[in-house]
Amino acid sequence: MQKPLILITNDDGIHAPGLRTLIQVMRNLGNVLIIAPDKPMSGMGHAVTISSPLRVHKLKEEEGYSEYSCNGTPADCVKLGQKAILGRKPDLIVSGINHGSNSSVNVIYSGTMAAVIEGALENIPAIGFSLDDYTFHADFSKCAPYIESIAGKVISEGLPDYTCLNVNIPAVNGSPIRGIKVVRQALAFWDEKFDHRRDPHNRDYYWLTGEFKNMDSGEDTDEWALRNNYVAVVPVHFDLTSHKTIPLLKNWETGNLN
Amino acid sequence: MQKPLILITNDDGIHAPGLRTLIQVMRNLGNVLIIAPDKPMSGMGHAVTISSPLRVHKLKEEEGYSEYSCNGTPADCVKLGQKAILGRKPDLIVSGINHGSNSSVNVIYSGTMAAVIEGALENIPAIGFSLDDYTFHADFSKCAPYIESIAGKVISEGLPDYTCLNVNIPAVNGSPIRGIKVVRQALAFWDEKFDHRRDPHNRDYYWLTGEFKNMDSGEDTDEWALRNNYVAVVPVHFDLTSHKTIPLLKNWETGNLN
Repeated sequence: MQKPLILITNDDGIHAPGLRTLIQVMRNLGNVLIIAPDKPMSGMGHAVTISSPLRVHKLKEEEGYSEYSCNGTPADCVKLGQKAILGRKPDLIVSGINHGSNSSVNVIYSGTMAAVIEGALENIPAIGFSLDDYTFHADFSKCAPYIESIAGKVISEGLPDYTCLNVNIPAVNGSPIRGIKVVRQALAFWDEKFDHRRDPHNRDYYWLTGEFKNMDSGEDTDEWALRNNYVAVVPVHFDLTSHKTIPLLKNWETGNLN
Repeated sequence: MQKPLILITNDDGIHAPGLRTLIQVMRNLGNVLIIAPDKPMSGMGHAVTISSPLRVHKLKEEEGYSEYSCNGTPADCVKLGQKAILGRKPDLIVSGINHGSNSSVNVIYSGTMAAVIEGALENIPAIGFSLDDYTFHADFSKCAPYIESIAGKVISEGLPDYTCLNVNIPAVNGSPIRGIKVVRQALAFWDEKFDHRRDPHNRDYYWLTGEFKNMDSGEDTDEWALRNNYVAVVPVHFDLTSHKTIPLLKNWETGNLN
């Protein structure tokens, strides 16, 4: 049987240690194409590069392995990998391991998950992996068996059409990971503050800071799973329609107003 | 009765003609704070600026009107407007009028809609307006009565919690707009191609190009509405969970694997 072809990207950039762990695991499962941003792209959301030229740089090629960096975003990497390098769809797209959680509403701001949603848009099975640990020496190695389990299932069983996975792994903090839970995105938000400063030329500037606040008391959410030492798997789609709201607004329909 | 306070932004930048039309209409409905990017930010998706300082520049202030530009993204503008300028939540956030459609999956890549979804995250009523016309001299004026109708309804009746609106207006092409339809996001995608070139130094580069393909034959979609000369109103939320997939994956749950 032919080995699956796996496209690997991230948003922390080609040199990130989380990417290296992900590559190691994926080499157990198939042939790999790595194409990742040449610099960190955190907080890039679903940005795509339309007004400047994209450049791709080959770093390494051997049997079943090729590695490229590019000057674009994670979403660009997925598009370039398929259309400019492979000339075909990969069998699986994986992104990460992100240095920090992409649970709850963070999915919206996440470059890691933008790459994964690009996969879903093309109906290619895709998984984003993130480690809920922001410390400099975060230990990605404990993630490996969970990543291999989930990616193995996706390769053998597939995913529903236009659906991808957002996988968040709890920080390793002494107590062991308790297992995998399939859950929903928690309703939470960032309570932002701006740190207002003045530069040496007496001009104002701001740093965006904020505190994450979970407003969701459900025990079926990604936040609950992480706080209880479970790996959180959220199936994600890209239909942003609030279907239940459509009938409520039907009486807003009008005819011509010009 | 006190006039509502309306925050206005966009992703085409502070000088865009679509923004000027939107400001005109909103001044009929309330007091306005404009805070928009100092340069075009198309395709920025839900990017936020966390690694560089944000700067805000006051351009104009008079009774019931203030206008600022900033060096951030549309999502940054919404955060800065509330937290650094107003110090309170506005009563309504509007974004646009975008020069080009944000229907269907374009909502994912759209800076215009990122600003609006920022509003929904804070549970502030928010509406994105886009004109399905990419021509240089696109006529935004025909949008005005539809924008005033929809924004007026939102001010008087509100929106369900954590819900915002994606409003796309058909190009004016001789035949009149037929009215407003409340619809869902169409299932469509971009068939991307990369235009591969070589620079004067003999190095490769790529331009992202693509063709929009609608795969959705439903007559209840935003694409259908636009193609049939209706203003398309899609209620949008930010829960990306594919709820129907959760039970299908429950047997993927495991215990500890380390």
